[in-house]
Amino acid sequence: MLAPDEKLKLSPKPYLSATARFTSGADTPRDFLERCLANVAALEPKIVAFVSLNLEGARAAADQSTARWRAGRPRSKIDGMPIGIKDIIETADMPTENGSPLFAGFRSQRDGASVAALREAGAVIVGKTVTTEFASTEPRGTRNPHDLRRTPGGSSSGSAAGVAAGMVSTALGTQVIGSTIRPASYCGCIGFKVSVGALNRGGSYDGLSQSVTGVLATTVDEAWQVAHEIAARAGGDPGYPGLFGPASAPAPRTPRRLAFLETAGWAVASSNAKQAMADALARFKAAGIEVLTRQSHAQVAAVEAAIAPARPLSMRINAWEWRWPLNTYRERDASKLSRAMLTRLAEAEAMSLDDYRNDLAQRDKARALYAALAAECDACVSLSAPAAAPLGLESTGDPSCTAHASLLGIPAVSLPVLQDEGLPLGLQVTGFVNGDAQAIAVAAAIKALF
Amino acid sequence: MLAPDEKLKLSPKPYLSATARFTSGADTPRDFLERCLANVAALEPKIVAFVSLNLEGARAAADQSTARWRAGRPRSKIDGMPIGIKDIIETADMPTENGSPLFAGFRSQRDGASVAALREAGAVIVGKTVTTEFASTEPRGTRNPHDLRRTPGGSSSGSAAGVAAGMVSTALGTQVIGSTIRPASYCGCIGFKVSVGALNRGGSYDGLSQSVTGVLATTVDEAWQVAHEIAARAGGDPGYPGLFGPASAPAPRTPRRLAFLETAGWAVASSNAKQAMADALARFKAAGIEVLTRQSHAQVAAVEAAIAPARPLSMRINAWEWRWPLNTYRERDASKLSRAMLTRLAEAEAMSLDDYRNDLAQRDKARALYAALAAECDACVSLSAPAAAPLGLESTGDPSCTAHASLLGIPAVSLPVLQDEGLPLGLQVTGFVNGDAQAIAVAAAIKALF
Repeated sequence: MLAPDEKLKLSPKPYLSATARFTSGADTPRDFLERCLANVAALEPKIVAFVSLNLEGARAAADQSTARWRAGRPRSKIDGMPIGIKDIIETADMPTENGSPLFAGFRSQRDGASVAALREAGAVIVGKTVTTEFASTEPRGTRNPHDLRRTPGGSSSGSAAGVAAGMVSTALGTQVIGSTIRPASYCGCIGFKVSVGALNRGGSYDGLSQSVTGVLATTVDEAWQVAHEIAARAGGDPGYPGLFGPASAPAPRTPRRLAFLETAGWAVASSNAKQAMADALARFKAAGIEVLTRQSHAQVAAVEAAIAPARPLSMRINAWEWRWPLNTYRERDASKLSRAMLTRLAEAEAMSLDDYRNDLAQRDKARALYAALAAECDACVSLSAPAAAPLGLESTGDPSCTAHASLLGIPAVSLPVLQDEGLPLGLQVTGFVNGDAQAIAVAAAIKALF
Repeated sequence: MLAPDEKLKLSPKPYLSATARFTSGADTPRDFLERCLANVAALEPKIVAFVSLNLEGARAAADQSTARWRAGRPRSKIDGMPIGIKDIIETADMPTENGSPLFAGFRSQRDGASVAALREAGAVIVGKTVTTEFASTEPRGTRNPHDLRRTPGGSSSGSAAGVAAGMVSTALGTQVIGSTIRPASYCGCIGFKVSVGALNRGGSYDGLSQSVTGVLATTVDEAWQVAHEIAARAGGDPGYPGLFGPASAPAPRTPRRLAFLETAGWAVASSNAKQAMADALARFKAAGIEVLTRQSHAQVAAVEAAIAPARPLSMRINAWEWRWPLNTYRERDASKLSRAMLTRLAEAEAMSLDDYRNDLAQRDKARALYAALAAECDACVSLSAPAAAPLGLESTGDPSCTAHASLLGIPAVSLPVLQDEGLPLGLQVTGFVNGDAQAIAVAAAIKALF
């Protein structure tokens, strides 16, 4: 029986630190996997992070990894890492259901580009994680591991919950408005949303111009490593140069200057969250880091103004870009689309190509303004969410703190270093386009301050 | 029995001129369709332009269009136009087989973005046209309507052959190296390859960075109209502004200056083809059009140098971008991939992300050089192919004359105004990125000179 106010014992499962004992056989990828699967057995009935599991396939892959480590020939640093895949990304061995009854049981018979790359790197694909309908807003029942009465956030709901609960070490998500950073914030894990185009989305049903692959993880290093292993084998989106950066997580780099961005989220942030952010800024200053704000710096103020409409602007851009395929899905069976998706389609059909062009031009302007900040600071910081995960499962929460990073196409890292209502709250570090490695390095240094 | 040296009687079926009689009922879309289907019945067994036909669906759609024209309420200028769809673009009512046994019978259960837009515009989708394997090099048996012993070109083989034979008015193709312009040249029809990103490729299995949708048609106006109707409803690729230009084909615009590009094709062009091109240039000069050449103009010479390696450079870029999904297809069943595709995959796996980045940088340089030509001339001209369609069906011919337009991401129009060996040969007009309307207007004016 589900006990919604039950407090779960969570044991996240970082992987890279465990691999030191694999060559000797003191530990093995198979044993590591079994510890994750013990969490699956105990917690999955309460959390509902997965749509599909392939335990047999995962165990076979973990055994092969075990043999490689014993032979001293792992395919990569993440060989054997148990990973969950957001259920909008294709997998050859499991259905890809997109959180939609229209895709119930759908099998593409191929792996998405990121999944193929992860398998090449030796990773163990454990299962498909719950996504909201088409990675949009309609929730699909996943609960927050820290409080089962609350949403884990979305749209990468199961990926964040599965990592936080130690059912997998890491998981792939995606983000077009806030779908990686927000669930990371609510579930208390690391979220890493890469620069636009930096990871190949082939075989992922998020073909929107601001959407990118994200990684949910328990350490900054693992978030980087997973992204790197994908990029090295599958590159970025066609025509993009792909994720730039070293083959292992860059060393922490203490920033000289940070810009604090309120974003549209500040106006709706809880007082605890605001206080937590203020404390964080004070901590930065105490560490000798200069903090620019909209009050102190004209360019920061200009960026704040440009990103204030990030959410509605992103919603319009996404709506137009969803006109297809939603129109074909409605044609097939409108009753299998949520009211929210039908409304979005109606909005798209009320738009013209010229409307969309105007929105793109506004986005380009905001991107140029933000890019100029690179000369002023090493990174920006903001809240990852306006508050802790809200009560209830009917909404995945407020994306006001994250839409700007998606609009701008910039890398973003959520660090689980703040709290609200005794629950996790993320501090968001955003970098500059294709400066993913620097964003990670700064995030690692900031995390060390807490 | 097939008589390979038989001379077919071809009756192409331009549509826009026919619509004038639809409102009165003197002619109807249904009757128009039946005239196309008579060609299908007579010629398809010899030409093999189609993989699938949905005659029942096409007739029902044509009847609905007939009713709309009679009521004076056509959905667009192309309401009722019989169109063929290259079989790499999804259709809800027919399989999408990608010219590959791996996709035999595969049904995506949705229309691609361009197909959905065409249906919205009232067009009649007649069937899926033969493509080479994955729109690459392996032919699939279509014959050239002008000489059944010859290739129709590829990869949009069935689209060009079907239009030339009057089995459809127009057809969609795609082009990543030469797959629209070359078959248009060989089959004696209009080919229109749009600017990179200008038409939404959603649901089309050509997710490569230089690949675009193309239109095969019998008139320049119809090529434009079809492209426009798609763009108005489905836009361009996500993040791109989509096809720019008027709602009806722009008026012909006689250029003041043209640049003649030899391209890599000149070195392998037949003497007839070279003479035909020389005659064309003389015709332009006689009409008062100045013609810049690599000999007379330093910037043209610089562009020629930059595009000389267009084909190998494009092949490397495409190879990397095909690494996925070819690796997952090989995993599934390597015996169902051609030797050419397996070789391409091996090439991709020998490349690194850095190699790919270098290739992108070289492409960017060529694009910048070409873009600067816009200040010097109104458009460029070149051969669409080095010769008439070669004998035999085992190859789709030489793409040396077309790779540059794909590499550069520019609009290109092939005009069936030249000849070689008494067979069609195209004159290619290329414009500048997002200047598709100007390229069409110049092409229309050039066509009128012949």
